[in-house]
Amino acid sequence: MGSKQASMRSSPPEIVAHNGLLDRRALLGRGVAIAGAIGTGVGGSLTSAAAEPLPVDPWSLGPGTNIPPYGQPAKYESKVVRMLTNPKGEPRTSQARTPHHLLNGTITPASLHFVVARTGFPDIDPVKHRLAIHGLVKQPLVYDLEALARYPMTSQIHFVECGGNSAPLYNKDPVQANVQAIHGLLSCSEWTGVKLSLLLDETGIDPKAKWLLAEGADGPSMNRSIPLAKALDDAMIALYQNGERIRPEQGYPMRLLVPGYEGNMNVKWLHRIKLIEEPVMAINETMQYTYRVAGPKIWQFFFPMEVKSFITHPSPGLNLKGPGYYEIAGLAYSGNGRIAKVMVSADGGKSWAPAALDAPVLSKALTRFRLPWQWDGQPVVLQSRAWDEAGNVQPTRAEMFAERGEPKVNVPVTAFPMGHMNVITSWAIDRNGETKHVYG
Amino acid sequence: MGSKQASMRSSPPEIVAHNGLLDRRALLGRGVAIAGAIGTGVGGSLTSAAAEPLPVDPWSLGPGTNIPPYGQPAKYESKVVRMLTNPKGEPRTSQARTPHHLLNGTITPASLHFVVARTGFPDIDPVKHRLAIHGLVKQPLVYDLEALARYPMTSQIHFVECGGNSAPLYNKDPVQANVQAIHGLLSCSEWTGVKLSLLLDETGIDPKAKWLLAEGADGPSMNRSIPLAKALDDAMIALYQNGERIRPEQGYPMRLLVPGYEGNMNVKWLHRIKLIEEPVMAINETMQYTYRVAGPKIWQFFFPMEVKSFITHPSPGLNLKGPGYYEIAGLAYSGNGRIAKVMVSADGGKSWAPAALDAPVLSKALTRFRLPWQWDGQPVVLQSRAWDEAGNVQPTRAEMFAERGEPKVNVPVTAFPMGHMNVITSWAIDRNGETKHVYG
Repeated sequence: MGSKQASMRSSPPEIVAHNGLLDRRALLGRGVAIAGAIGTGVGGSLTSAAAEPLPVDPWSLGPGTNIPPYGQPAKYESKVVRMLTNPKGEPRTSQARTPHHLLNGTITPASLHFVVARTGFPDIDPVKHRLAIHGLVKQPLVYDLEALARYPMTSQIHFVECGGNSAPLYNKDPVQANVQAIHGLLSCSEWTGVKLSLLLDETGIDPKAKWLLAEGADGPSMNRSIPLAKALDDAMIALYQNGERIRPEQGYPMRLLVPGYEGNMNVKWLHRIKLIEEPVMAINETMQYTYRVAGPKIWQFFFPMEVKSFITHPSPGLNLKGPGYYEIAGLAYSGNGRIAKVMVSADGGKSWAPAALDAPVLSKALTRFRLPWQWDGQPVVLQSRAWDEAGNVQPTRAEMFAERGEPKVNVPVTAFPMGHMNVITSWAIDRNGETKHVYG
Repeated sequence: MGSKQASMRSSPPEIVAHNGLLDRRALLGRGVAIAGAIGTGVGGSLTSAAAEPLPVDPWSLGPGTNIPPYGQPAKYESKVVRMLTNPKGEPRTSQARTPHHLLNGTITPASLHFVVARTGFPDIDPVKHRLAIHGLVKQPLVYDLEALARYPMTSQIHFVECGGNSAPLYNKDPVQANVQAIHGLLSCSEWTGVKLSLLLDETGIDPKAKWLLAEGADGPSMNRSIPLAKALDDAMIALYQNGERIRPEQGYPMRLLVPGYEGNMNVKWLHRIKLIEEPVMAINETMQYTYRVAGPKIWQFFFPMEVKSFITHPSPGLNLKGPGYYEIAGLAYSGNGRIAKVMVSADGGKSWAPAALDAPVLSKALTRFRLPWQWDGQPVVLQSRAWDEAGNVQPTRAEMFAERGEPKVNVPVTAFPMGHMNVITSWAIDRNGETKHVYG
């Protein structure tokens, strides 16, 4: 495991918050001693290199595998999959969660995009599929995919998040689950399609229209009322996801995209849009996706997913292997615009350090934050807290429950009736480097 | 097929260049008559909608398919694959080309990322794989994946392009091939990894070092000399591609990323970096990837991929179905920074209109350009031309061959010895809407 040069242990990095949080710019090539901080023989292996020739690995001794027309992940990555709540496809809702603890960056591969589906996904023939726009319009129109392909398109990177994501944090006691189980109903893609405002410009809009009903072609015809103002702002008929046609689970051949609004409003397998005067009171706005607040009130039409962040590295299952240097990394986002700032704490919220944000920071898109950290091996509680450009701040548990009432029960992780949960998440790390979910 | 309202055919859009090129802002919701311009019954089908109830499609009549842990494209998209030059894996170089005519946006799905491989891809066990940094350093170091995971990372969206991409344009006569065959050795991903400068900061650099040798763990140990200045600028040890671990064909578990530089320098299956005084004269810098210019000269070390653009929609195979409105869309990029401007011509370069660029326009990344177009059914020649922020302009064929000498031979599409080809591409469209490659 060879010795380190003394110079590599010199220039200790600047600690800017308790329990070893370092300046976010500390390690950008300014001679900080990461190798020394990692140490040798503990966790990641870092050794002095031997002279040439280097050892030759068995896979370097012959020709490799032929290139396939459509590639797949390495066989060693077979655990990087969505977590399914209904793997046998029983007649109930299925949820498939994105494994954020095993990913990095901000783009979610389409194969790992989260799904909430009431009856799986329909097998839609794209040649036969139609999108109708009707109701309170001057000229109802029906589009096939070929007609839509001739319209001006736009490509935008946006997150989609289920209104019920992070609902386990409503539990009275902290659920013992990982970031995939708690925050996995969230993904981010580059979406390409036709702005809905363009199509409505063609059908014309009856002045009485204030809402639209968006309906999918799946078995249950899942539908949702959308305010007309959003349709005329940044809503899109999305046809492509990360470059290729939208995947079957994401709405093939088209879905409505309402950037920043709760997931169920981004209606998949979209086949009609009807302009209407009043919301239709669909199941997703009456039984589902209404939210308790303190007292006798509920929120019935509360659309944007509020500013949120959580730490993905480290997180439960990604345990630390001894004291030394680590990167704390996570995701931040807001349905109200760009992320303005993310702060990180290693002492349960007593002291905070600003995280670095990977550029570009885009509106209504996942933003990756990162902060260098020197762990001394003592117990810590990691937290992150985000601010958006609209001035919203991610609440503490105390702040949220002052408004919504304290949770009094424990419910199964897969059966939370409540949504719009964006409180600070806390990961406790013990002396053995084990990471678990706590209420900080 | 119903009648259109008169109002939908009013307000003709502003034509800004010959043969129907429209103002790039013409269709952003300002009441332009696209539906009327598409027409009915020609090409894309656009019909007046019937009253409710709408017809019910068979796939809406029952439950759908269960959500898989790792998703795949719709079965109807089975033709959206890479074009392989060596599908049986014979003992020669394989090329797999990205189907840009079937994609949209700027991100390339990892499954469709282009590949050039000398002997397929090796089956590397990520736990056993090592990266050695040695040679003219103060302290040689060997990293495993766990050690690298503890370093600060960064996520950046960058294109990678083979130095030999677009080489068919060196042919004396225009090859009859589509955009995938001509320009498909180009893709764009979000890459996440550790900046090489951080690791070199730890090994230290002997002042004599001016280059580094980067070598892969594949059978032929493909290697390349990289200037040390690039390594200290924006080079990265890339571990993730579009969120998930780099795919086997892209270098699993790690590749060198030298943003904007020719593809072969982004060494896949990276297992060592040796700091050296002079380039090693590897096959990829002597026999391969040297470029003829006029007279007795060659370019031997010419790294950045120059500013280029091409139209993906329409392009050969995507034929037009009758006169009317279409969107012209394509990709532009430069190894020297951001795209500053893309101009489009429909008359073979006599008149030009500025295209709209999808935001964000990122450095050394694919940029999607778009322009609305009203085709009158007459023959046209479509071209695009790009400028980058460094002031470079994509050359015409005449400009390039004045410098490099006129091509005198026809060679098979798959066997071009020449690279760094970035001249303007021309697609001719005849009265039937058929699109073919020409020299404009």
